[in-house]
Amino acid sequence: MKILIKNGFLLDMLSEIPNIRKTDILINNNIIEKIEDNINENVEKVIDANNKVVMPGLINTHTHAGMSIFRGYKDDKNLMDWLENAILPVEAKLTPEDIYWGTQLSCIEMIKSGTTTFCDMYFQMQEVIRSIEETGLRAVVGWSVTDDSIRDKYEKTIKYANIYNKENSRIKIYVSLHSGYTCSPETINKFLELAKQLNTGIIIHLAETQDEEKIIQERYKKRPVQYLNDLGVFNVPVVLAHGIYVSDEDIKILKNVNGGISHNPVSNCKLASGICDVVKLKENGLNVGLGTDGQGSTTTLDMFEEMRLCGYLQKVSKKSSICIKAYDILKMATIDGAKVLGLEKEIGTIEIGKKADIIIVDMNKPHLIPNNDICTNLVYSANGQDVETVIIDGKIIMENRKIPNINQEKIEENTRKIAKRVL
Amino acid sequence: MKILIKNGFLLDMLSEIPNIRKTDILINNNIIEKIEDNINENVEKVIDANNKVVMPGLINTHTHAGMSIFRGYKDDKNLMDWLENAILPVEAKLTPEDIYWGTQLSCIEMIKSGTTTFCDMYFQMQEVIRSIEETGLRAVVGWSVTDDSIRDKYEKTIKYANIYNKENSRIKIYVSLHSGYTCSPETINKFLELAKQLNTGIIIHLAETQDEEKIIQERYKKRPVQYLNDLGVFNVPVVLAHGIYVSDEDIKILKNVNGGISHNPVSNCKLASGICDVVKLKENGLNVGLGTDGQGSTTTLDMFEEMRLCGYLQKVSKKSSICIKAYDILKMATIDGAKVLGLEKEIGTIEIGKKADIIIVDMNKPHLIPNNDICTNLVYSANGQDVETVIIDGKIIMENRKIPNINQEKIEENTRKIAKRVL
Repeated sequence: MKILIKNGFLLDMLSEIPNIRKTDILINNNIIEKIEDNINENVEKVIDANNKVVMPGLINTHTHAGMSIFRGYKDDKNLMDWLENAILPVEAKLTPEDIYWGTQLSCIEMIKSGTTTFCDMYFQMQEVIRSIEETGLRAVVGWSVTDDSIRDKYEKTIKYANIYNKENSRIKIYVSLHSGYTCSPETINKFLELAKQLNTGIIIHLAETQDEEKIIQERYKKRPVQYLNDLGVFNVPVVLAHGIYVSDEDIKILKNVNGGISHNPVSNCKLASGICDVVKLKENGLNVGLGTDGQGSTTTLDMFEEMRLCGYLQKVSKKSSICIKAYDILKMATIDGAKVLGLEKEIGTIEIGKKADIIIVDMNKPHLIPNNDICTNLVYSANGQDVETVIIDGKIIMENRKIPNINQEKIEENTRKIAKRVL
Repeated sequence: MKILIKNGFLLDMLSEIPNIRKTDILINNNIIEKIEDNINENVEKVIDANNKVVMPGLINTHTHAGMSIFRGYKDDKNLMDWLENAILPVEAKLTPEDIYWGTQLSCIEMIKSGTTTFCDMYFQMQEVIRSIEETGLRAVVGWSVTDDSIRDKYEKTIKYANIYNKENSRIKIYVSLHSGYTCSPETINKFLELAKQLNTGIIIHLAETQDEEKIIQERYKKRPVQYLNDLGVFNVPVVLAHGIYVSDEDIKILKNVNGGISHNPVSNCKLASGICDVVKLKENGLNVGLGTDGQGSTTTLDMFEEMRLCGYLQKVSKKSSICIKAYDILKMATIDGAKVLGLEKEIGTIEIGKKADIIIVDMNKPHLIPNNDICTNLVYSANGQDVETVIIDGKIIMENRKIPNINQEKIEENTRKIAKRVL
């Protein structure tokens, strides 16, 4: 199918500073074929983007999509109390079917707030994959491994990697280790070898809390980054969720990784984990994307909320309004996120030859007028509900905020029922 | 006119902990007349609030509404550079008519995000009052005084206070001093006497930055709070914007004020001013409301954004997920805000006899499902665009997100033109 997007303000996310121009974009099948003014071509679909912003779809580098069932459940608790007494007992009640419906809800939430790609680690991932197939999102997924039930996850990772890790696949299978403190060195070694064997990467929580640091120091007499480095984890592509507690020595190790850090400011605030020094990481050449974490801790998957909180936290904690610019944050949510997931050749910018993952944002609303600075407006004033159209892999997934191919009511009804049953 | 709101989840904001129940509310003229189940009464208008939250309208305790023209203009700058080189030169170009249109834009932005009352300090306030009259909001306003052009503001304050400071008026006139560092002691004394004479309060910026503290220390050998206290400012009701840099001694002074502090977390982050220790202030008995500040620094007037950032900042800076609860933050945005403005007998809760300032929030959206905890969902997941209906002083100002009596397009067109001219 050919789609022509006319007259939008294109924010291609290609240059060092914002380059915004009014132009047309031609999509042919799943590829961006032309970007030029006044394209005249026979197409199946024309989208009028006049006075709207056309930009790459947002990339959420860290989720647990099945957790939508727990949105806001037993909130305002400390991390360990919340995890042990609120989440773990109810998580144990989730069936594969529950994970499917929870992920369906997360997928429509993501689509409705402009996210086109996400990176998910949880359990029953075959259900997550089923949901991604149906909703049309792009994703990197992994079966989150702790020292329990290793065998099933090992086998499923192989099975699904063989199915999905191919060119042009919207879904990529990564190996996923929960963390350095919940996986033994043996488990880590086993799955690191698996990642190498499958020629894929690893998703892992890293340096999220001071408790984590303390546990790993006590067990292995090393800092978490040093510990994983010594095991060789950073020899494969990595998605490192959080990265708050990293020393100058850690930064020297991490600056050479393939992939990067997923910064999750909302979750880090809500769980009182700490503030990641994004400015310092970036100054030292690390690649940092943005993520939401699961709705249990983070409540919503709206990446616009993550973008602005990232800006707020850096500015106030570094005591500098100029330490991070709106455009830098937009990069984190697009091309830098693509790099975290090893997808920078396919997505993250709008350029000829890349996959057509595009969102159109309606700037004709009181809170976005006058539109003196598009980047500032996007980061600090817009939210997910301003996204009007979502195109993923060349397919129109949402148009005028309607998702035609998904039974939204059924998803909402089922997730409400599941929440009622398990909570 | 009689309005009946049926079957909503009522969050009345009256109790110490959330008390949410499904019930009906009857409004007669501008007053809440009945709150009970299954009200059967002949009314002009029935609103079905099934599966929606009915709560008090949000109260924004600190704005400069005319600044909407500067939304996002020359962002990502340090405070003094931004103020002196970006804002002040363009502010000087604003005509009274510009202030009117800028305020109109802010008013529709506030209505569309559930704010029913705001507290504004700026210049050309007769234009702000004109806009408030037309849009139907409730407000406390003051002509912001520095040492320049005192006479005109003095006279206008008297003139408009005589018109508006009466029972049942939606508009209240306060005296407004810009700050302790931009007003001489003589100016402060003169306007303090005026506030006493008019039997009204004072709006003032206080303890916003370390620079402010330094200037006042150098000039008067006192901390800002001590300085204003010695002048007698706290003998009248006060709206104290920011309150970041307050010592334990300052807290002893401020705990007895009539009114309270307006906490503006977005502005404080964006301008890198600092983090107000709201938890400590509240523990010491101070009354703290929420505000947005002007869109020049803060970009948007969405009070939901202020609510959640307030929570994020307290949790992460105090290293405690439990230091502030979602319901406490909702109180700050409603009844505590009403107290800051001296309006707690009229608004801020939903109870019989109070003014009917009510909003209805639609919880039937993917990012608010399942609705496991209404307060958490409102603070951390909802945003202004989830507000469906706004009632102020018994009048339906917005219904199904439409504001029938306002020409929104004309406001948007005019503010775009003004921005183009002055920026």
